[in-house]
Amino acid sequence: MAVILGIDPGSVKTGFGIIEAGAGRPRYVTSGVIRLPPGPLPERLRVLVAGITELVELHAPSELAIEQVFMARSAGSALKLGQARGAAIVPCVTAGMQVSEYSARQIKQAVVGTGAADKVQVQHMVKTLLKLPGTPQEDAADALAAALCHVHTQAGLIALAGASAVRRRRVR
Amino acid sequence: MAVILGIDPGSVKTGFGIIEAGAGRPRYVTSGVIRLPPGPLPERLRVLVAGITELVELHAPSELAIEQVFMARSAGSALKLGQARGAAIVPCVTAGMQVSEYSARQIKQAVVGTGAADKVQVQHMVKTLLKLPGTPQEDAADALAAALCHVHTQAGLIALAGASAVRRRRVR
Repeated sequence: MAVILGIDPGSVKTGFGIIEAGAGRPRYVTSGVIRLPPGPLPERLRVLVAGITELVELHAPSELAIEQVFMARSAGSALKLGQARGAAIVPCVTAGMQVSEYSARQIKQAVVGTGAADKVQVQHMVKTLLKLPGTPQEDAADALAAALCHVHTQAGLIALAGASAVRRRRVR
Repeated sequence: MAVILGIDPGSVKTGFGIIEAGAGRPRYVTSGVIRLPPGPLPERLRVLVAGITELVELHAPSELAIEQVFMARSAGSALKLGQARGAAIVPCVTAGMQVSEYSARQIKQAVVGTGAADKVQVQHMVKTLLKLPGTPQEDAADALAAALCHVHTQAGLIALAGASAVRRRRVR
C-alpha cells in the first residue's frame, strides 16, 4: 500500500491531495488547499512549507506527484509560481520521498482520458474515481488528479481499470 | 553579534556567504558556491537544501539576506530561478531566521556606492570590506554583498563608516 501526495502548487493557494494505492481502486485519504497569506514572501513560504510538512508527518506519504510547469503567463508570475513550487517540494525531498513530475496533459489524459480536458471534467472524474461524496475544490482536485496520474503511470492501466466504464457514463 | 547569511540563488549554482556583524567592521566567516547537479529537479533542490541546511546548522545565522528578483530573461528561466530561490529560503524560515530581501540596486549601492556597479566592482569591494586575502567567486561575492547590504541597512551608515574612504582608493 503506497501513500501518494499530490500537490498543485500556486503562489496564492496550493492544492494538496493524498490517496492510498494498492490492490484495487485508489482510496481517498484527504485533500484541501493551503492558502498563502498576503504579505512578504518568506512568511508565505513558511505557511506553505508548514502545511506540507504537517501532511508529510501526519500521513507519511512515500511519493510525491506534482504537475510539471512549462509555461507561465509572464516572467513575474513564473518566478512566484517557481518559488512556491520549489518550496513545496523541499519537505518531500527532505523526508526522502520519491518525486515524480507530470505534465498537465499527462494528468488530464490519465484521469479524464483526454489531455485537453477542462477543470470541471477533472473535478468530476476525481470525484467519481475516488467515490467522493462531493466535488473537491479545483486546486484540491488537481492535486488528487496528479496523485491518480502517478498511480496510473506506476501501475499501468490495471489500477484504473474501472475508470473507462465510469467515464462513459459521466455527465458533462 | 549577529550572524548573517547571504544567498545569491541560481538554478545552476547558488552562492552563499556568512558574516558576523557587531561593533566595528563586519567579519567574514565563510562563503562559497553550491553547485546543483544536472538532472531531475527534485535531486537538484535536495542538494541545494542540504547545503543551506548544513550552513544553518553549522553557523546558526539569525538572519538571511537575499536578492529580490524582479525580472528574468524568460518565463522558463524565471520558473527555474524561482524554484531554487523558494527552496533556498525554506531551511531559513524553518529555522526561524528573519528574512530580508534587497534589490540588486540596493545591494550594489550599499557595497559599491552606486546601484549601477558591475560584478567586478562588487567582488572588489566585498574583498576590501571584509579584508579577504583573495577575490571571492562571483556568486559567493554577490551573496556576501547581500549580507553586507543587510548589515548596512540594519545598522545605518555607521557600520560601514570606513567603507567610503576605502572606496575612493579602489582600482577599477
